[in-house]
Amino acid sequence: MRSTFEEQLNNLHLRFSEMGMMASEAIMKSVKAYVNHDKALAREVIENDRFINKREVDLEKKSFEMIALQQPVTSDLRMVVTVLKASSDLERMGDHAVSIAQETIRVKGEVRIPEIEKDIADMGDLSTGIVEDSLEAYLKEDSKMAKEVADQDGNIHIEGKQINDACISAMQQSSDNVLSGSSYMLVESYLERVSDYATNICEWVVYLNTGHVVELSQKHVADEDEE
Amino acid sequence: MRSTFEEQLNNLHLRFSEMGMMASEAIMKSVKAYVNHDKALAREVIENDRFINKREVDLEKKSFEMIALQQPVTSDLRMVVTVLKASSDLERMGDHAVSIAQETIRVKGEVRIPEIEKDIADMGDLSTGIVEDSLEAYLKEDSKMAKEVADQDGNIHIEGKQINDACISAMQQSSDNVLSGSSYMLVESYLERVSDYATNICEWVVYLNTGHVVELSQKHVADEDEE
Repeated sequence: MRSTFEEQLNNLHLRFSEMGMMASEAIMKSVKAYVNHDKALAREVIENDRFINKREVDLEKKSFEMIALQQPVTSDLRMVVTVLKASSDLERMGDHAVSIAQETIRVKGEVRIPEIEKDIADMGDLSTGIVEDSLEAYLKEDSKMAKEVADQDGNIHIEGKQINDACISAMQQSSDNVLSGSSYMLVESYLERVSDYATNICEWVVYLNTGHVVELSQKHVADEDEE
Repeated sequence: MRSTFEEQLNNLHLRFSEMGMMASEAIMKSVKAYVNHDKALAREVIENDRFINKREVDLEKKSFEMIALQQPVTSDLRMVVTVLKASSDLERMGDHAVSIAQETIRVKGEVRIPEIEKDIADMGDLSTGIVEDSLEAYLKEDSKMAKEVADQDGNIHIEGKQINDACISAMQQSSDNVLSGSSYMLVESYLERVSDYATNICEWVVYLNTGHVVELSQKHVADEDEE
């Protein structure tokens, strides 16, 4: 028996949320692998990324079919379009988890800086938290929560700046710190990007509710004075 | 008089291509600003990013209307969905141009390493070239060209690795090189990402022609041995 459109839509939502959890788990694991120098876990993240990619393709196909066969309008169409667009954000999160996992493998046996690794771990928790909260706002279709989650993005960038500054100092102090310090800076930049994608998810939650595309991300333009 | 669906579709294509050119120009200018230490140009890139973001929103709205009002199927729907999805890739390119522009402003008056800046400029040319070629493949709906363009992505990653290695050496040689060296590494990572987005555009071209979602990106998994 052919399922109703409503059933299909619920299923689409569910599968999107699952994809979100896969992406969130990938980030969590990649940071864990990175700070624990756990190459086996890093390889697992890289290996499992194909499931996230596959899920995006599945969601694209399913959304396409639903639009083509059922021709939904207004709020139903909006839900399908949201899944179609926001699944890209989740897929990119997975890509960044892979990049962090690759750094785990690349930077092996180097001098480590435990204080900065602690900060990276904290920033990883912060990023994963924002991703999970953005998915919760999506599941609840809660615009207010989505806006609050997006506001946390500022904390990520403050944390990120502190990590960058600490890396620069450490590398200037000793050339032994250059390999690990430059790696921390890259991982920090990936985590900032992950948080940006979570903010995009929040923007989609608002769109889902209101039909309006909003800009929740805070632009972090360097505010130095002109020369 | 209401325009025909075909006219609307052509218009959508055109506006997507224009968005691609805006993104491509932003990357070109951001790299130019970065290597010429041109903060005014960097600010222009940051300022103009809102036009790229606005264009994505416009394309989303237009695509949504076309689906809701005209209920296209098969290849027509595929074209609209492609614009809906691929416009995210162009928007992200713009974001990375902004990140490069922000680095131009952040790293001011530091010791520079001309040889590496030359390599960054070359890599910028390579990335912008790939972006432009991917857009040409899109306009021509040429799957063969799209696959060839995606193949060039490997060169970007080779070039990127060389830049990274040069930065690490320079920073290890002298602490005076730490600020600029770490900045070059970040800019290099942004350019690699831009090239990944261009590869995504190529994948969309193949989808447009065949209805099949393909994976053209080469995964650059670190290939070090297990410990």
